[in-house]
Amino acid sequence: MAKDKEFVKEITPQSEDFSRWYIDVIKKADLMDYSPVRGCIVFKPDGYELWEACQRELDRRFKETGHRNAYFPLLIPESFFQKEKEHVEGFNPELPWVTQIGDDPLEERLAVRPTSETIIGYMYSQWVQSYRDLPILINQWANVVRWEKRTLPFLRTSEFLWQEGHTAHATQQEAEEETTRMLGVYTDFCENVLAIPVIQGQKTPSEKFPGAVATYSLEAMMKDGKALQAATSHYLGDNFARGFDIQFLDRDNERKYAYTTSWGMTTRIIGAVIMVHGDDRGLQLPPRIAITQVMVIPIGPAKTRERVLPVAQDLVKVIKDAGVRVGIDASEDNSPGWKFNEYEMRGVPVRLEVGPRDLDQHQVVLVRRDTGEKEIVPIDQVANRVPDLLEEIQQAMFDRAKGYLQEHTKPAMTIEEIHTLVREQKSFALAGWCGDDACEAKVKEETGASSRNIPFAPPTTMTSCVVCQNEAKHTVWFARAY
Amino acid sequence: MAKDKEFVKEITPQSEDFSRWYIDVIKKADLMDYSPVRGCIVFKPDGYELWEACQRELDRRFKETGHRNAYFPLLIPESFFQKEKEHVEGFNPELPWVTQIGDDPLEERLAVRPTSETIIGYMYSQWVQSYRDLPILINQWANVVRWEKRTLPFLRTSEFLWQEGHTAHATQQEAEEETTRMLGVYTDFCENVLAIPVIQGQKTPSEKFPGAVATYSLEAMMKDGKALQAATSHYLGDNFARGFDIQFLDRDNERKYAYTTSWGMTTRIIGAVIMVHGDDRGLQLPPRIAITQVMVIPIGPAKTRERVLPVAQDLVKVIKDAGVRVGIDASEDNSPGWKFNEYEMRGVPVRLEVGPRDLDQHQVVLVRRDTGEKEIVPIDQVANRVPDLLEEIQQAMFDRAKGYLQEHTKPAMTIEEIHTLVREQKSFALAGWCGDDACEAKVKEETGASSRNIPFAPPTTMTSCVVCQNEAKHTVWFARAY
Repeated sequence: MAKDKEFVKEITPQSEDFSRWYIDVIKKADLMDYSPVRGCIVFKPDGYELWEACQRELDRRFKETGHRNAYFPLLIPESFFQKEKEHVEGFNPELPWVTQIGDDPLEERLAVRPTSETIIGYMYSQWVQSYRDLPILINQWANVVRWEKRTLPFLRTSEFLWQEGHTAHATQQEAEEETTRMLGVYTDFCENVLAIPVIQGQKTPSEKFPGAVATYSLEAMMKDGKALQAATSHYLGDNFARGFDIQFLDRDNERKYAYTTSWGMTTRIIGAVIMVHGDDRGLQLPPRIAITQVMVIPIGPAKTRERVLPVAQDLVKVIKDAGVRVGIDASEDNSPGWKFNEYEMRGVPVRLEVGPRDLDQHQVVLVRRDTGEKEIVPIDQVANRVPDLLEEIQQAMFDRAKGYLQEHTKPAMTIEEIHTLVREQKSFALAGWCGDDACEAKVKEETGASSRNIPFAPPTTMTSCVVCQNEAKHTVWFARAY
Repeated sequence: MAKDKEFVKEITPQSEDFSRWYIDVIKKADLMDYSPVRGCIVFKPDGYELWEACQRELDRRFKETGHRNAYFPLLIPESFFQKEKEHVEGFNPELPWVTQIGDDPLEERLAVRPTSETIIGYMYSQWVQSYRDLPILINQWANVVRWEKRTLPFLRTSEFLWQEGHTAHATQQEAEEETTRMLGVYTDFCENVLAIPVIQGQKTPSEKFPGAVATYSLEAMMKDGKALQAATSHYLGDNFARGFDIQFLDRDNERKYAYTTSWGMTTRIIGAVIMVHGDDRGLQLPPRIAITQVMVIPIGPAKTRERVLPVAQDLVKVIKDAGVRVGIDASEDNSPGWKFNEYEMRGVPVRLEVGPRDLDQHQVVLVRRDTGEKEIVPIDQVANRVPDLLEEIQQAMFDRAKGYLQEHTKPAMTIEEIHTLVREQKSFALAGWCGDDACEAKVKEETGASSRNIPFAPPTTMTSCVVCQNEAKHTVWFARAY
């Protein structure tokens, strides 16, 4: 892969300007490039590999929970969008329309899919006749387009990559269980693979998916205190089943509408990994998602190279055989110091240094990316120690992010308190809400914070609405959000 | 997955109507469904799994040859198509144009990508400054759209899935080597994974990729004697480099244009697997691509079920531990006979039958899908025998397809002979060609056979043009084609 040999400026410190820090890091780590198509990015190999790692982990979990992959058409006839009223209103302004093939106009416009409930709903109506045809448990890996006004690499792009699960069930209960199950799968993935703690909860009506009965989300906290919606799982009731006529003959010989769900996670999760774990030196990748988990760097004067290099190469083999993704940078073009900085910037969890003095003492040095701690390990212990160390780092990164989240989540009794929390203290604000859209809108207007979700397990239950002070129906997380 | 419980008619015999046989098989094996979008199909889970298996095998080979995956935008500005003249003329009639976002017209139309040379060429021009930035070796897994007038599931659909490799090199020689290398990777995949023998060669100028200097192809023979282009690899010279200004400063301090290549394989390869190996009983999947390689089916009267089932389940475990993809159908809804037919139709390479009498004799029966041969194997030998048997089947399927190809490839001295070969003998015709487009066109006009490629290793060298009888410059395969 071509390396950017231009002068790359230093990374702006997070404390100085978090947004510039983010752009500096993703450019310097060569994860993406801007494209000539408005709001669309190029996923460069180092960025795309992160998505491939996410795909592998998610795909395995989807299959373990009984889902299979399929693929549905990209282009969706305009009439399909009319069949679910909220859905068309929600997506219409962002839809790219194909109106011509070559020089010939199309009879019916085709939308580039923003999501696939409509076309999949139509197909399910063809496939479902009897209760024996249910459930249908399908996932699709695909690209989707939503023409966004304000875009930010990975976090909000006009085209993005995602997976969208679409299931149909004979009963409401089964569909609701599916919605919950998949929120659990996403939680497991975020917390145990990406080391990102998440808050599970339900979206308020104004924030739910257009056409859903209920939307559940995972909300994660970035290091600037903003929220990022990491995944959503929608219980669609029979809304789409009625729109597309997904009916089946039940055991009791009655024709009924199916209950459907959908759930998705997108390439924006790459942005979350960067913003949760990154620091002023650059990326910091949790070991389970890191493409290279350990980088071996031979050190010492040139004349010792002949002695050190074969040992370094043996170590690569030994570490690889221990099931670890390991690389080596033995190039003579760059100094060890340059390499240390480079792989720290790229977020490699562990660096292994080996030089002539280490050989004399039958040892190597392991350096953690997360804490900078150095550890001297006997050469014959490397294969045992490295996998354990990676697990320790994985756990430490999660604990650190969890601690950060806990320190930055506080209750608020008034709009002013929300304002202070989200604007000055980089925090989420937990507040009571009466259930009135107007009160929710007022919080946003006055603080810039939107309702994130109504948590399943709030740390405290708030009793009065943060706006009107009437009795609270819900306890809600408010935060500024990506 | 929902099963189609409707009455599914018998499979039309290949000899009666090959096209109907093909559609019957893919519908009955539940590989696809027609979609409401013209010319686009739904890849159902059983069909999509075949593509996933192809992806795994190809992706590994691409990475082993030094390539990395990336992702570029779906929508391509109209002006990009103007930069390579042949390219725009070749693709323009099939391009879907996005002209509006929501209700607002776009200033510049955006094409839904038919292939990505243009947008990738533009990006490479940004990334390449020096010879040190070369080569760039990138592959993309993506969907593309080409609005086809006549479509056929998998083989020719308006939207299809594929991979497209795009590389840039400092020298012509290196780019040409890359083109050849990737044709070799495809050949390895087709022959050793899909058990499909292929003919390597170069396309004639009228059949080459719009904008390429040279297009190389793999041509495979379907059981009806038609050709299917299994993969292409294009040497693009500096055509796209000049169009998009991919220039670099070389070692000698001169600015030069890069040389580029592209190469692709699509979901049409699924159709090839079906048409090369399938028979009147249905699919026949080569073991290396089969999702289920062995299906275990307990047999015998209901009262023996308690004895047989635990053994069958143990066998599943033992076979799985031997690294084989194995399933079991122990359902009581269907008879063993029904199951035998079902998994034969679905192309599972080996069936394992186990019943009470087998238990008495500590044995099972293995049945090959390809030959129908039965083999009695002692239970404690199953884990050893099954992997070997799968390899034997893989090899036998390739040999059988290779034999078929050899029997159906013959030289032709006249247009009439080509006509007879391709129309009556289900064959490819090897013929001399003077190099004149008009002679090539005349063959097509009079026989329906197009030039497939100029083989690297023709079985015979033809000396006079099959049309004008002047001296032949090339020896060409002609065939009717999908």
